[in-house]
Amino acid sequence: MDELDIEAVAEAELDDPVLVEGLPGVGHVGKLAAEHLLDELDGTLVRRVYSEHFPPQVEVGDEGVAELTSAEFHAVETEGRDLLVLTGDNQAQSNEGHYRLTDAFLDVAEDFDVSEVYALGGVPTGELIEEYDVLGAATGEALVDALEELDVEFREDEPAGGIVGVSGLLLGLGERRGVDAACLMGETSGYLVDPKSAQAVLEILQDQLDFEVDFADLEDRAEEMEEVIGKIQEMEQQQQPNVPSDDDLRYIG
Amino acid sequence: MDELDIEAVAEAELDDPVLVEGLPGVGHVGKLAAEHLLDELDGTLVRRVYSEHFPPQVEVGDEGVAELTSAEFHAVETEGRDLLVLTGDNQAQSNEGHYRLTDAFLDVAEDFDVSEVYALGGVPTGELIEEYDVLGAATGEALVDALEELDVEFREDEPAGGIVGVSGLLLGLGERRGVDAACLMGETSGYLVDPKSAQAVLEILQDQLDFEVDFADLEDRAEEMEEVIGKIQEMEQQQQPNVPSDDDLRYIG
Amino acid sequence: MDELDIEAVAEAELDDPVLVEGLPGVGHVGKLAAEHLLDELDGTLVRRVYSEHFPPQVEVGDEGVAELTSAEFHAVETEGRDLLVLTGDNQAQSNEGHYRLTDAFLDVAEDFDVSEVYALGGVPTGELIEEYDVLGAATGEALVDALEELDVEFREDEPAGGIVGVSGLLLGLGERRGVDAACLMGETSGYLVDPKSAQAVLEILQDQLDFEVDFADLEDRAEEMEEVIGKIQEMEQQQQPNVPSDDDLRYIG
Amino acid sequence: MDELDIEAVAEAELDDPVLVEGLPGVGHVGKLAAEHLLDELDGTLVRRVYSEHFPPQVEVGDEGVAELTSAEFHAVETEGRDLLVLTGDNQAQSNEGHYRLTDAFLDVAEDFDVSEVYALGGVPTGELIEEYDVLGAATGEALVDALEELDVEFREDEPAGGIVGVSGLLLGLGERRGVDAACLMGETSGYLVDPKSAQAVLEILQDQLDFEVDFADLEDRAEEMEEVIGKIQEMEQQQQPNVPSDDDLRYIG
Repeated sequence: MDELDIEAVAEAELDDPVLVEGLPGVGHVGKLAAEHLLDELDGTLVRRVYSEHFPPQVEVGDEGVAELTSAEFHAVETEGRDLLVLTGDNQAQSNEGHYRLTDAFLDVAEDFDVSEVYALGGVPTGELIEEYDVLGAATGEALVDALEELDVEFREDEPAGGIVGVSGLLLGLGERRGVDAACLMGETSGYLVDPKSAQAVLEILQDQLDFEVDFADLEDRAEEMEEVIGKIQEMEQQQQPNVPSDDDLRYIG
Repeated sequence: MDELDIEAVAEAELDDPVLVEGLPGVGHVGKLAAEHLLDELDGTLVRRVYSEHFPPQVEVGDEGVAELTSAEFHAVETEGRDLLVLTGDNQAQSNEGHYRLTDAFLDVAEDFDVSEVYALGGVPTGELIEEYDVLGAATGEALVDALEELDVEFREDEPAGGIVGVSGLLLGLGERRGVDAACLMGETSGYLVDPKSAQAVLEILQDQLDFEVDFADLEDRAEEMEEVIGKIQEMEQQQQPNVPSDDDLRYIG
Repeated sequence: MDELDIEAVAEAELDDPVLVEGLPGVGHVGKLAAEHLLDELDGTLVRRVYSEHFPPQVEVGDEGVAELTSAEFHAVETEGRDLLVLTGDNQAQSNEGHYRLTDAFLDVAEDFDVSEVYALGGVPTGELIEEYDVLGAATGEALVDALEELDVEFREDEPAGGIVGVSGLLLGLGERRGVDAACLMGETSGYLVDPKSAQAVLEILQDQLDFEVDFADLEDRAEEMEEVIGKIQEMEQQQQPNVPSDDDLRYIG
Repeated sequence: MDELDIEAVAEAELDDPVLVEGLPGVGHVGKLAAEHLLDELDGTLVRRVYSEHFPPQVEVGDEGVAELTSAEFHAVETEGRDLLVLTGDNQAQSNEGHYRLTDAFLDVAEDFDVSEVYALGGVPTGELIEEYDVLGAATGEALVDALEELDVEFREDEPAGGIVGVSGLLLGLGERRGVDAACLMGETSGYLVDPKSAQAVLEILQDQLDFEVDFADLEDRAEEMEEVIGKIQEMEQQQQPNVPSDDDLRYIG
């Protein structure tokens, strides 16, 4: 295997598609969102990217069949813009890996004549969220303006420390290639897998790209999460009589 | 030295051999199993793989003679399928190293016309084992079915987190080359070097490949381990009057 | 993107310029000093260096527009020697990265016919500073002598452990290319962003290179820092009746 | 700069020389020994090896002049075998770096027609040493036998875990090139810079190579170390009335 290996699984005719990325990250917001798109819309697996920058790992499916870890691109047709959805179980494991994988992802996007990129993710707030705002960043002012009209928030110096990993580099390396790109970051506590934050991000995305998905499944998962949280809070109250603060919650999902 | 250096120590005529890998890992199950094969069956050292992805280290033998750390392939003829046994004292020390070494191991296997790979290892359960089940994963359903008939267990989503290191990649990269591969993982506490788990794995392997080895030596080592555990438990009971739980055991061997 | 990518943003005619480097480091002394030069003197952004040795990160500006992290060179004309000022938000993240980026920085310097390099930084003392001495090191005795006359201190075996990172390598790799280079290190506690130390370093630099900048802004920032320190000390005195030592101060800025 | 850069500083005519390596390590035994050779015998600096596998660092000399960190080879003529002495302030910072630097060191040795290598170092015992034994390992039995006659100890399975770093690889990679090599490891507590252990190693080396050095300076350093230890023990007895065990000593030197 080479450092990077792009496997052409199938071809697809997409009409002026956008790349939508949802790899693992804070609150699994991006990954939940991308996977929800694939669950709700009919998609075709078109490319797999293998790389020695991923962990040396296979995932074992239900039938006991193992598959080398990879990032996957699915072609998805919608009633609005067509989508090329990038998801997977791992991020790169080194700085160089992040740069090189993102470059490979943009190569795949170019193959499908993608002209716009949406990187989905979460931004940690450190406390449980009441209203799920979506924070944005983009490669240019036109995209900032368009998203601002959809109530995406652009706040001075946020996220502090910039955007790291593939989501950040899709903007950074995308801009250098002349590809418009935006990052949509759902606010999330940072302690929990957060389906509600994923839904908030997807609601923006469907407004921007003119398609519609059903959210019943994400809402079910959000309810399950709330039950889990409720039980944990109960257990903690029994153990210690004081009401637990949000800080007591540990990362679960 | 290059990044990878395959030394041809000897040649051997093997008849449709399978690769059996047992490098260090959980409970040293794979390494114990592979070394037991070499102890019991007549083998010939045929290849050594040196690599800068191994630790920068020499091992010192009984006579004071130092040898550069390497992975070794022994050719072993059995009354059933012939074996190419891969063992060694170290795993790669980086992600890239795991990928590149596994690729080199598969190159060696190809040289010997290997068409099937068995990666041996342990899977940690966190508690002392009463019945030594063997968990499996494979590159295809045919191999899964064959192993299932020998009582290898294939459980949904296990091992959680997939299979990492060379054992995992032999399946992942093997499948990409069109080589059938299976991983046999003996359940083990994860705290102890576990000869019983190694025996359980080898019992499956000999059924699958139609050869037989004597287990007296592994059984002796298992008894020694049990004496060690007994003494530790005794010492701990003297120090603290409560009966120690399994969790008190530290990794020894 | 390649491992290193030097973007030519603009050209500039500089007369026998010197390179002035101020990347992040102890007390942010070098970065504060370089940025103050750019704030006070008219400069033109001439080169950006992108690299996979930087973190995989974009910085988000006030308008929500993201930029790939880079090191930037500004051309600055002064009434004395012209300057090529190197600054940025990140250092390399690995040993190799430090070597390769510094080599790239020296390539850029060569493009602009730079014959002398000044690396600016801080040296931690572990205690609050009363008098801001500037410690020096250089590639040759002539430069040592010239700086010693401007009251730069050259002390046996200081800084202990040598000078690490880009500042050190500008001297080490610069000398190997035949470029004269000096490092000016302002003493600083190491706990605080230190505008006073940056000013001390710049005062030496302007004497050496015959230009002048106004320090009002740096003095304002120093005053702000002192107010912050004062408040922290006050809070700590309220919490614990004993007078806090300097050691209680945490790194802030 | 390339990954590795061998600078030819001077040439020297050596008669059938041996390479003697003393880079930093346990108790600084190897480095003390190699530097003592250079202090006592007339040597000429012949090669410097620079590498991005060293830390990104310059060392600052007494005059304030900075030098890029490197490994240095000195040619030394003795009344016995001539020596090529390798020393420096740093080891490589990664596995790959250890392999590549050792390969470069052996290239330099080959340039000078070195046919035998002695790697000097310390082996930690965890307690203060009364009698300074020297442990050995070598690439072949002839060298083991020769050193055994000089009272070098060769013990089964020692040092446990093998020999790591450049010292180990000089044997491992040397053997693969057909160069005879031995490692001489002075026993040392592991907590202290240990001139006595360095002397024990050098006494073996001079017997083996038929030269003589004066040890007065090393003995002086050993006495200084003992005074330091004595003061620390005194301070600790004042602080806590119980007699301190050897374990209380921290690594100093």
